This record gives sequence, structure tokens and C-alpha cells, in this order.
Amino acid sequence: MNFPKRVEIKNLQFAKQDGLIPVIVQDSRSLTILNLEYVNKEALKRTLETKYTHYYNQTKKQVVMKGETSGNIQRVIEILVDCDQDALIFQVEKKGLACQVWMKTCFHNRLEEFKKLRSGKKR
Amino acid sequence: MNFPKRVEIKNLQFAKQDGLIPVIVQDSRSLTILNLEYVNKEALKRTLETKYTHYYNQTKKQVVMKGETSGNIQRVIEILVDCDQDALIFQVEKKGLACQVWMKTCFHNRLEEFKKLRSGKKR
Repeated sequence: MNFPKRVEIKNLQFAKQDGLIPVIVQDSRSLTILNLEYVNKEALKRTLETKYTHYYNQTKKQVVMKGETSGNIQRVIEILVDCDQDALIFQVEKKGLACQVWMKTCFHNRLEEFKKLRSGKKR
Repeated sequence: MNFPKRVEIKNLQFAKQDGLIPVIVQDSRSLTILNLEYVNKEALKRTLETKYTHYYNQTKKQVVMKGETSGNIQRVIEILVDCDQDALIFQVEKKGLACQVWMKTCFHNRLEEFKKLRSGKKR
């Protein structure tokens, strides 16, 4: 086997999910996971052109630059591709907050049932 | 606003994506992102019951315990939920490798076009 391999945009499996690929957005310094977004080809193209993250907004049905209105922009430091070529990681340097609800990450909640499980059974 | 909030399984948006929710699998110690997987309610239930990750395998169309055949199991340390309640993070302690192609993470490829962009324009 010969990994890592050469992966280009043309290899990405956009067709699998109606033209969209999930993108895990990770802070390049702290490695905190900020959000899970989606790109279509256009959003990925604009991200590469500008080096600032652009995502496909499924509600607005259009490509939006992250932080265009809020100022909470994300500069791309690295783009990683998984072995199935159907998921990406954008490692970013962010300015400001990541989440629309004024948090540093969108993953700011713990799952209640797991929390209980942990507090119930210490070991 | 009142965050973080209490999120239970019943709040998770399974219906949005045909009964599946994407799960970002992250090494709890190194914070390396290992993979992007999917759970249905059954996979999440089994994960909570056993504290070992179970995912919905879209090819096999069934719930599979990670590492059941390979031995590369993942013990769950924390489960985080995003603000839209449509994505999860499983922070795990893993035994062995994360990826079927014998790598520590499934995200072992860099996107060629971005690599070129970086090497072309140093700043």
C-alpha cells in the first residue's frame, strides 16, 4: 500500500451527498473542533481562491463566506481529506467566535444521557 | 441567552438526514480527528450502553461496533453536541489504528490544490 496518496478536487465524492461534502472545521492551534459545515464545488473553489472559508448554506441555498457579516472570518491553514474522499478537514486560524450563539465552538453542549452515565459510574 | 444548554437524545435532529447524524471522532488525548462516522438512534443507544463506539455502516446498512473485527476499538470519554443538535463529537481513547488503510487517522491526505497554493505563495 502507498499512503498518503495524491488527492485532487476531481477525486472528491461530491455526488455521494447531492453535491455536498461535510467539512470538519478545526482550530489549527488549539485543535478544538469549531463546527461541521458543508461545501459544494463552488464553496471549495472560493475557499481556495481566497484562502478564507466559504460554506454552502443549506437554508439560504447559496455559498456564503464565513464571517462575511459577523466579521468572524477563518483563514485556511491546511485542507485534509479522508481515505474515502468524502469528508474534509479545514484547519483554520479564526478571528472572533465560531458559533452564531456567541460561543468559541459550536460544540458547546454535552449529551445529557452520557453525562449521567459518567457521573453514575465512576471508575 | 442561556448556553450551554441541556441536550438529550430526543432533541437530536435525526430526521434531517434520513435518520443519521454525523459524528466527528476525535482522540481525547491528542485531539487528532480520527474519522467522520454516522450514527442512527440504535448506534447511539449501543454506544451509550457499552461506552464503546458503534456506528451505522451505510454500505452494510447495519450498526457495527468499531473494531469488532479489527480489534481497533474506541472507548468513549465524552459526547458533545453542536448548537443545531445535528452533529456530534465522540471523544475517544482508541486502541490501535483508526483507519481501515492502516493509518492512525483517516484524514491522512492533503488536498493537492491547496498544497500547491501554499508552496507557490509563501507569506
